[in-house]
Amino acid sequence: MIRLFTNATILTMKEGEPLLSEASMLIKGDRIVWVGTGSPPEAEVDKIVDMKDRLLLPGWINTHNHAAMTLLRGYADDLPLQTWLQKYMWPLEARFQARQVRAGTRLAVVEMIRGGTTCFADMYDYMDEVAQVVADSGIRARLCRGVIGLVSEQERQSKLNEAVQFVRDWNGKADGRITTMLAPHAAYTCPPAYIEQIVEQAEILDQPIHTHLSETAAEVEQNVNEYGCRPVEHLDRLGVFQRPTLVAHAVHVNEEEIALLAARSVKISHNPGSNLKLGSGIAPIPAMFRHGLTPSLGTDGAASNNNLDLLGEIQLAALIHKGANQDPEAVPAEQALAMGTRFGAEALFLSDEIGTLEAGKKADFISVDTSVPHMQPAHDLVSHLVYAAGASDVQDVYVDGHPLMRNRHLLTLDEEKIRWEAQRAFEMIAPSE
Amino acid sequence: MIRLFTNATILTMKEGEPLLSEASMLIKGDRIVWVGTGSPPEAEVDKIVDMKDRLLLPGWINTHNHAAMTLLRGYADDLPLQTWLQKYMWPLEARFQARQVRAGTRLAVVEMIRGGTTCFADMYDYMDEVAQVVADSGIRARLCRGVIGLVSEQERQSKLNEAVQFVRDWNGKADGRITTMLAPHAAYTCPPAYIEQIVEQAEILDQPIHTHLSETAAEVEQNVNEYGCRPVEHLDRLGVFQRPTLVAHAVHVNEEEIALLAARSVKISHNPGSNLKLGSGIAPIPAMFRHGLTPSLGTDGAASNNNLDLLGEIQLAALIHKGANQDPEAVPAEQALAMGTRFGAEALFLSDEIGTLEAGKKADFISVDTSVPHMQPAHDLVSHLVYAAGASDVQDVYVDGHPLMRNRHLLTLDEEKIRWEAQRAFEMIAPSE
Ligand SMILES: [Zn+2]
Ligand SMILES: [Zn+2]
Repeated sequence: MIRLFTNATILTMKEGEPLLSEASMLIKGDRIVWVGTGSPPEAEVDKIVDMKDRLLLPGWINTHNHAAMTLLRGYADDLPLQTWLQKYMWPLEARFQARQVRAGTRLAVVEMIRGGTTCFADMYDYMDEVAQVVADSGIRARLCRGVIGLVSEQERQSKLNEAVQFVRDWNGKADGRITTMLAPHAAYTCPPAYIEQIVEQAEILDQPIHTHLSETAAEVEQNVNEYGCRPVEHLDRLGVFQRPTLVAHAVHVNEEEIALLAARSVKISHNPGSNLKLGSGIAPIPAMFRHGLTPSLGTDGAASNNNLDLLGEIQLAALIHKGANQDPEAVPAEQALAMGTRFGAEALFLSDEIGTLEAGKKADFISVDTSVPHMQPAHDLVSHLVYAAGASDVQDVYVDGHPLMRNRHLLTLDEEKIRWEAQRAFEMIAPSE
Repeated sequence: MIRLFTNATILTMKEGEPLLSEASMLIKGDRIVWVGTGSPPEAEVDKIVDMKDRLLLPGWINTHNHAAMTLLRGYADDLPLQTWLQKYMWPLEARFQARQVRAGTRLAVVEMIRGGTTCFADMYDYMDEVAQVVADSGIRARLCRGVIGLVSEQERQSKLNEAVQFVRDWNGKADGRITTMLAPHAAYTCPPAYIEQIVEQAEILDQPIHTHLSETAAEVEQNVNEYGCRPVEHLDRLGVFQRPTLVAHAVHVNEEEIALLAARSVKISHNPGSNLKLGSGIAPIPAMFRHGLTPSLGTDGAASNNNLDLLGEIQLAALIHKGANQDPEAVPAEQALAMGTRFGAEALFLSDEIGTLEAGKKADFISVDTSVPHMQPAHDLVSHLVYAAGASDVQDVYVDGHPLMRNRHLLTLDEEKIRWEAQRAFEMIAPSE
């Protein structure tokens, strides 16, 4: 199937490429064949799609999520972190079974598609369920079974076996839409020897590593007390950064640690919404850019965000660092957009395939309605997208050249059924009030 | 006309009142007659409106705006403040005429209604145009001609005369939907004697005062250099706070100044989006609450925000103070909602008429669709509204009992024409590129 999208404004997100007006994009099957202004190369086009008043750009890439946690959205907020975790999150998560993970992840994928996300990273349990939802829904994902090592040695091995088996079963599946990682949950939840074991498996399986890093000040302090060094040095000593690694949060990292992360080419998932809401702090994103890092963006789970709106994270990233540093030039609009697209692809080690619109890459893209009142006058669409648009301005979502949403109608998922199932799955585990 | 809205979830925003399930609201003409669960009082109802899956609550109150500046949305971003003002904003604003103000304000009102704002404060020039747009559109507003005193004595007097005449012409007009204020732009743009003169006029006309206060650190420093004290003390000495006063921003105010603002019952308009985007800083909102102040929310003009989405400001207010103070209990959801409703009414000295849904008040309210995926499971609607919803979830908007939007269709304004006029009005003043 060859499709030509015409009459569009296109933001390829290739570094330095300006917005293309009256542009077209030619798609053959799952790949982009051509993007540009003027006449497209001759091709037997099966379908021409008029994109008047639409801005085409790469789909958002959400580099840190626990999708199934949509079930716990709004279950508890505005509480001290330990109360929130120990009294609310952990007891309910302990009741999660396959059904909850399936229902929560399906709800998450509905929300992500509706907001323009075409690829997400997920770290959770019952990952076969998550992978099946990804396969069925048509979205793209980099998935990992997150392992917490604060259990018996036997349980640790069984979890690691699960994580390894998950990679063997799913990496490259669903026409390559599913890829995988190995995921020690965090330095403070995994003993050093366990982390080393996971790194060893990652090497055998040639997998990247995804972990939480220095989300809170307390966690850093604990690491210093327990291991005599801060978490970045600790993970480096354990060999984690010898593997391609993606770390979530990195809120409490000092200049020296940022330099080490940059030297090791570690990828960052900045989660501004979650970090603000949990009172964790504000990550030093401008300093990371100065050191040559290219932070990407994640929502984290919906229990701490409380939505999966990656455009919202782009907007927060563009705003909060300006305010926190009293510097209106911090994280300009183009950079914030790159964090949600091109840098996201790099963070998931998928930049050969996604993250920009250019010939040879996968046809993962979205369209945004630019005729809405909050994007007038039509002066600078990049500015409008970052500083004025909302998730509901996303109209169409394509992954691998397949439409998942057209004019805000979902094509691969039954939204009403999913809503109902999520409600049921939540009620099954919620304590009666 | 008597209307009964049934089958709704209602958030009255009266202090301490819980969410009402399966509730109804009875409206007679422009006023609320009854809100509650159970059977409404007997009345000859002309129309019953089913509000299934809808959350009813007071409309948002935007307490600081320069509506016409929508024309400059995205015209310049990510620049140092002085470059932004001197090179971009001021030269273009100098070209604004009645036509630009009319077109920009109409665009602003479209956007505000679509986002659920039922009342806004506006400070600008050509205020007759603004008042006419308010009268025609059906929205409610507290308007003031902002005066900058860095001009000749003659011009100062002519501006003040204009401001006074505007109050005489418009206060109480449009069935009382329009009220007014007097507005010295700021301490750094008005000589002390001029401010005193404005205060005197405010007393004669029995008008509140609206001004910008301590938005940037530089402005505070300049005040100290020029007048030997910080802006709060300066305005207090000039007698400003003897009048009911609303100040916008108050980003750089210390504990002592907050105490003085509280002692004088000064109203605060917190503008988090604009303060972040311009790199001004983060206002000490938790400290203000500790001192008994009840800050409201404003968007500021769309050139520095860049939208007029008050729910977005509610969400920023609920998030950024948690992050900046590393305190997940700062500005909880209910408090953030109060900032956008009840405290907004107080800030505009309209709390007898609006800000909550209760018998006797004006029927200014909105409905939000709670069936969207990002508000599932349906656990805590207050949390979902503050942490997960978006402006486009607002479905209906009523002011004075009149529908301005129903199921997202605008009823009083021609959106397409307004979009076109705004584009034309902008192009007339924009330098050719
Ligand atoms: Zn996480
Ligand atoms: Zn202002």
